Amino acid sequence: MNRGLKMRDRKLLGGLVGGGLGSFIGPVHRMAGILDGQADFVAGALSSNPEKSKRSGKKIYFDPARVYSNYRDMAEKEASLPAGKRIDFVSITTPNVYHFDIAKTFLEAGFHVICDKPMTCTLAEARKLRKIVAQTGKVFALTYTYTGYPMVKQARFMVSSGMLGTINKVVVEYPQGWLSRFLEDTAETWRTQVWRLNPELSGAFCTVGDIGTHAENLARYITGFKIKELCADLSSFIPGNVLDEEGSVLLHYIGGAEGLLHISQVSTGEENGLNIKIYGTRMGLYWNQDSANYLAAKMPNGQSVTYSKGAPFLCDESKQASRLPLGHPEGVIEAFANIYREAYKAIRAAMRGESHEGYDFPTVDDGVIGMAFIESVLVSAASQHKWTLMKR
Amino acid sequence: MNRGLKMRDRKLLGGLVGGGLGSFIGPVHRMAGILDGQADFVAGALSSNPEKSKRSGKKIYFDPARVYSNYRDMAEKEASLPAGKRIDFVSITTPNVYHFDIAKTFLEAGFHVICDKPMTCTLAEARKLRKIVAQTGKVFALTYTYTGYPMVKQARFMVSSGMLGTINKVVVEYPQGWLSRFLEDTAETWRTQVWRLNPELSGAFCTVGDIGTHAENLARYITGFKIKELCADLSSFIPGNVLDEEGSVLLHYIGGAEGLLHISQVSTGEENGLNIKIYGTRMGLYWNQDSANYLAAKMPNGQSVTYSKGAPFLCDESKQASRLPLGHPEGVIEAFANIYREAYKAIRAAMRGESHEGYDFPTVDDGVIGMAFIESVLVSAASQHKWTLMKR
Amino acid sequence: MNRGLKMRDRKLLGGLVGGGLGSFIGPVHRMAGILDGQADFVAGALSSNPEKSKRSGKKIYFDPARVYSNYRDMAEKEASLPAGKRIDFVSITTPNVYHFDIAKTFLEAGFHVICDKPMTCTLAEARKLRKIVAQTGKVFALTYTYTGYPMVKQARFMVSSGMLGTINKVVVEYPQGWLSRFLEDTAETWRTQVWRLNPELSGAFCTVGDIGTHAENLARYITGFKIKELCADLSSFIPGNVLDEEGSVLLHYIGGAEGLLHISQVSTGEENGLNIKIYGTRMGLYWNQDSANYLAAKMPNGQSVTYSKGAPFLCDESKQASRLPLGHPEGVIEAFANIYREAYKAIRAAMRGESHEGYDFPTVDDGVIGMAFIESVLVSAASQHKWTLMKR
Amino acid sequence: MNRGLKMRDRKLLGGLVGGGLGSFIGPVHRMAGILDGQADFVAGALSSNPEKSKRSGKKIYFDPARVYSNYRDMAEKEASLPAGKRIDFVSITTPNVYHFDIAKTFLEAGFHVICDKPMTCTLAEARKLRKIVAQTGKVFALTYTYTGYPMVKQARFMVSSGMLGTINKVVVEYPQGWLSRFLEDTAETWRTQVWRLNPELSGAFCTVGDIGTHAENLARYITGFKIKELCADLSSFIPGNVLDEEGSVLLHYIGGAEGLLHISQVSTGEENGLNIKIYGTRMGLYWNQDSANYLAAKMPNGQSVTYSKGAPFLCDESKQASRLPLGHPEGVIEAFANIYREAYKAIRAAMRGESHEGYDFPTVDDGVIGMAFIESVLVSAASQHKWTLMKR
Repeated sequence: MNRGLKMRDRKLLGGLVGGGLGSFIGPVHRMAGILDGQADFVAGALSSNPEKSKRSGKKIYFDPARVYSNYRDMAEKEASLPAGKRIDFVSITTPNVYHFDIAKTFLEAGFHVICDKPMTCTLAEARKLRKIVAQTGKVFALTYTYTGYPMVKQARFMVSSGMLGTINKVVVEYPQGWLSRFLEDTAETWRTQVWRLNPELSGAFCTVGDIGTHAENLARYITGFKIKELCADLSSFIPGNVLDEEGSVLLHYIGGAEGLLHISQVSTGEENGLNIKIYGTRMGLYWNQDSANYLAAKMPNGQSVTYSKGAPFLCDESKQASRLPLGHPEGVIEAFANIYREAYKAIRAAMRGESHEGYDFPTVDDGVIGMAFIESVLVSAASQHKWTLMKR
Repeated sequence: MNRGLKMRDRKLLGGLVGGGLGSFIGPVHRMAGILDGQADFVAGALSSNPEKSKRSGKKIYFDPARVYSNYRDMAEKEASLPAGKRIDFVSITTPNVYHFDIAKTFLEAGFHVICDKPMTCTLAEARKLRKIVAQTGKVFALTYTYTGYPMVKQARFMVSSGMLGTINKVVVEYPQGWLSRFLEDTAETWRTQVWRLNPELSGAFCTVGDIGTHAENLARYITGFKIKELCADLSSFIPGNVLDEEGSVLLHYIGGAEGLLHISQVSTGEENGLNIKIYGTRMGLYWNQDSANYLAAKMPNGQSVTYSKGAPFLCDESKQASRLPLGHPEGVIEAFANIYREAYKAIRAAMRGESHEGYDFPTVDDGVIGMAFIESVLVSAASQHKWTLMKR
Repeated sequence: MNRGLKMRDRKLLGGLVGGGLGSFIGPVHRMAGILDGQADFVAGALSSNPEKSKRSGKKIYFDPARVYSNYRDMAEKEASLPAGKRIDFVSITTPNVYHFDIAKTFLEAGFHVICDKPMTCTLAEARKLRKIVAQTGKVFALTYTYTGYPMVKQARFMVSSGMLGTINKVVVEYPQGWLSRFLEDTAETWRTQVWRLNPELSGAFCTVGDIGTHAENLARYITGFKIKELCADLSSFIPGNVLDEEGSVLLHYIGGAEGLLHISQVSTGEENGLNIKIYGTRMGLYWNQDSANYLAAKMPNGQSVTYSKGAPFLCDESKQASRLPLGHPEGVIEAFANIYREAYKAIRAAMRGESHEGYDFPTVDDGVIGMAFIESVLVSAASQHKWTLMKR
Repeated sequence: MNRGLKMRDRKLLGGLVGGGLGSFIGPVHRMAGILDGQADFVAGALSSNPEKSKRSGKKIYFDPARVYSNYRDMAEKEASLPAGKRIDFVSITTPNVYHFDIAKTFLEAGFHVICDKPMTCTLAEARKLRKIVAQTGKVFALTYTYTGYPMVKQARFMVSSGMLGTINKVVVEYPQGWLSRFLEDTAETWRTQVWRLNPELSGAFCTVGDIGTHAENLARYITGFKIKELCADLSSFIPGNVLDEEGSVLLHYIGGAEGLLHISQVSTGEENGLNIKIYGTRMGLYWNQDSANYLAAKMPNGQSVTYSKGAPFLCDESKQASRLPLGHPEGVIEAFANIYREAYKAIRAAMRGESHEGYDFPTVDDGVIGMAFIESVLVSAASQHKWTLMKR
């Protein structure tokens, strides 16, 4: 349909790796990627099982010719199609362990990449990927979901504007409870049900890589703070499990602020309780993803102000990240779509031959810091929780 | 792109009437309509101003040949295109006053119709439209947004299952504050800024048709109750305004339950505060669109249970209306998309030559009841708030 | 102990009528009356059953000689004791039907009176009592509990300061659910369990007198608005019950504002859900007794400000009504104690021979308006819900 | 007044040390101590300044003869009065540094003691005090406020009943913001305004002793868990201050559960945010003192149940700790009064010559553990946050 159209007159074309039938995050990428009518997904290697890939592609109306058996094929064949027909970018939604090679493959085949987090399985891989991104000059976006929320952008603005005064403390919590159903599971059914508990698919970590990195990224996105050193306590309660299920991390930030990061996937009854509190000398800020459309500014002396998504006095970044007026709730898909939207701007800029720097989405650098955080936590936890310098 | 494909192997193709640049509800239809990857919008008469229609179409990557100057042209020309190329349905997102004629035009030209509420400007029009829908046999869906929420579907299920016992009372409130900025406006800038305050575009009502009908529909969707008689008090506080800005309606339902419906668009500081409480002999239910992902069951004796969207024990209709797991907020766009999704099922059924009855979306019958409610309220309010029999 | 002391050097001495073993409101009066160490209760006619009165008195360490068989005896004998030994005031905590005569008896015997609401059983009685209070010159305080809350006082201050602009709408709701346990009760056990459902003890009303008058009083305390006319719908769902269990009242205030008052004691699962919203042209206010220590100011344009009890910037009346710093919750007993505290100031002023006007507690005039409201509601409801002029 | 009465027929008589004009906690003790009409305060050494003590005593209607210049005098003179006239117990509400000697003095003079927390300034003192209590056989109660709340008692009951399954994690937070007003204070006005920042009055700690010990006690009261080892990070941000203002403590409990304790008095905008989350294999519990009348049970799979204070199905301890029906908020004073009420039961038992064990209030043993916790935290924080064995 778009063939022959100038790039500015057509939607972008996207490919998918992973995200076949039964996937949680695959559909989120698909919905977020098309929400604003800026792109369509048209090709994919949707599963490592070619048959499942095929069935998955049919379900979402892909041309069977563009449903591939594996991502290497896909990269090669798509690259051979003419511009305007071939995909412009690929979205990676597989388990962690495949991210690096898929990203490398598509970047080197000339495609822009949008990748789920954590970026890789190791810091070493992350550093390599950073180099590849630099060498290829392609856009690389990482979907740290929560930075896409309008009120998170407002929080970042308020911090950078100095409205909080000097920040002394950051408390970020991310409790979930979904792994607690295995706490009394001696049949070890989790081995097959949850790839994140399988070191071969998840890497040397579970929870700290699944949600700990979200928490670290959110705190850093809002405050800009870099971790100097950390002291971590990781635990596991599921019988037989070798990866982390929950942990607490004390943080010392460069510049003197303190941090506390608490994560869990065995906090029974918690759903997706990411929240952050930032305390400055002049006010405190509180954001909770469960009521993501609000941001609370806690003033000294008994006054608390709640700002609503879409309010006219919010910063531009926040307002632009909202698609609906005041009082009309937006959720995770819309936040995710904000990351896509910014990545699309960068991709279109790159396609026009312009600089694609400066757009508001997580980059490969964020991915490197994310992996440095994960590995530093693992080192501290493994060494009797010694204070450990943050890796770079 | 879809030409030549069998219907079951392709996305549906939609058209838009209204919803050009600057529209609030137009983009909601567009995003909701494509969210699940079931349809694309490809043609439109996006504004009554042909130049604006053209610019709007370009912005959303429509083929310029399918951006029409007016909806009559659009209906005629699209009808002349071959199946698989022409649109399958049209979405109507204009001011109220045009709904009837647009719907009639497209239905009679052989298209399915998805229409924003209130359905028409008068009950007489609504009745006529019901006949046209019956005669043409086309799918007609009405976007009463809030019936699309997963937890509203759960509430409906709990009521129909008898879990509440006998229901004695329904309290539904819909306070907004966005018109309050005109309360001290002697320049009457609202005349040009707000079509809903202009009788020529809105009909004989403002608030009762904009949000009152949502409130009535929500209560009816959940309880199934029909209004026997009502006593309404409507008010206007903006200087010079002739339409209603807020009101209270006492309701007597057939079967003996009592109702209270309260709406306002001059409740300063309220955003979009739709909420409903349903009191039965065994429990009370509470739902608030501001925290739409939860439903509270108020038990006697000091226990309140909150159910979360996506929970495994919810009814099927509720679970299917949720795209994400527990704790991942979904908002208005997703609720809207649920109405579209059900309408698409009906449209595909109709295209297969099967019955398109029994899907879970508001129909032309709901639209007739909605207009009957609006006119009954106007009659009661105009007659010194006498108890007035509900029109049929 | 206090004998011989000058009045200013001693606690006040109080008597109790009603409030024996098993009473709900009796202990509230006792706790509230002594909380600040300003008074002790030392005498009482605690039950209409002399034996129960005696047992009740023993339980609370009263001198048996001052536990009376009936209130006439009590008034007479206490009056014969010397000042400093005899009670200074009496608190009336019996069913409604006795209030008038008890109050009359003690006022005419020279005592100050603190009385529970509703003040009397009829408007005629209320007017008579107003005369008696005027003739005797004694202090008469009525315990409309909710006016004692610090944040209600702040709301009143904000309204009277003009911070809300012109007020157009007041919505006050008071849902309770405790009568719903009788909704399927064919044994009519409520006849003996609940004196409020017995016309001989409660008067011609149940809910409207028990909580409707609280709602009306709260709205009036905050706004100062007087009702011009009202349209009421009262209902009863308990089989066999002749009194009201719930109702909705549309209000037109003198000056043009609209009101909506909704009360119920059969709203299953509601506990004590009194709340009020006041909408002005510049902001809305929201207070809910369930989170009584906060007051929310809803600003236009997506900003909501919550003020906490005890904050330094609150009005003096609010700050003085709080005994604890920010963040330390106070409840019903403390609110009640604030009414007592103001009444004690008035009583001490009277004892010093000074004017006892101008203190911040509900008076006999509030009691007359309360009864006028109740009777007006009954008239409207009985006359097919006609708009009815408020009695005076 | 009570002279000559048998003990069971009279109120208890209490004395006060500290709590003169301007005190925060003094009035709380006074109000809590008399709320239920079980006792009166009749004597005191209300300030270390004899003149202020006198003025304070007059204000609260004490007989001037029983307002003492210092607590030694008070203990001696009260001890010389006849039973029924002399005080039965004393309440200690002074800065920490005096607690030990005052408690010792009164215990040895034959009085029961109710003491504010932390119990002493050092663990050594605490151990000594434990011996003295044992030797004298007197009742010693420690006012860990939050254990008095009805819903905290319900939480304890649910844990001990096994309803949570195996508990893996306890998260207790106590953020306050009141010290943040000194964060930019170079004039060091806090030196004179806040005795807790003065090591001579507060001991070697500020925040950890003021609120950290509340947090530890609350977690222990509910779970019964004992700390095996801890890792603490304490911080100070106020220029010139030598004591702790905030900190995070990682906990390993005996038995294998993990804990996280976070406290602060420089969290700008926080008021009194004590809250606790307890995660078991079957459910999570959440209690927040800001909405103290509720307890939330977080079930797996998207269901959360909120229990209200006063509900009929709560455990007996919880129901007895509530003075009002469902929906009628009770606050800090009532919680405090519950500790007093249990202490009074023990005191009356002791006066009857019966055992005074087994009542539900914090004892000298809790005080010893509290001081052991404080000192362990200080040791860990001072040693580069090494994991430190909990002292005993």
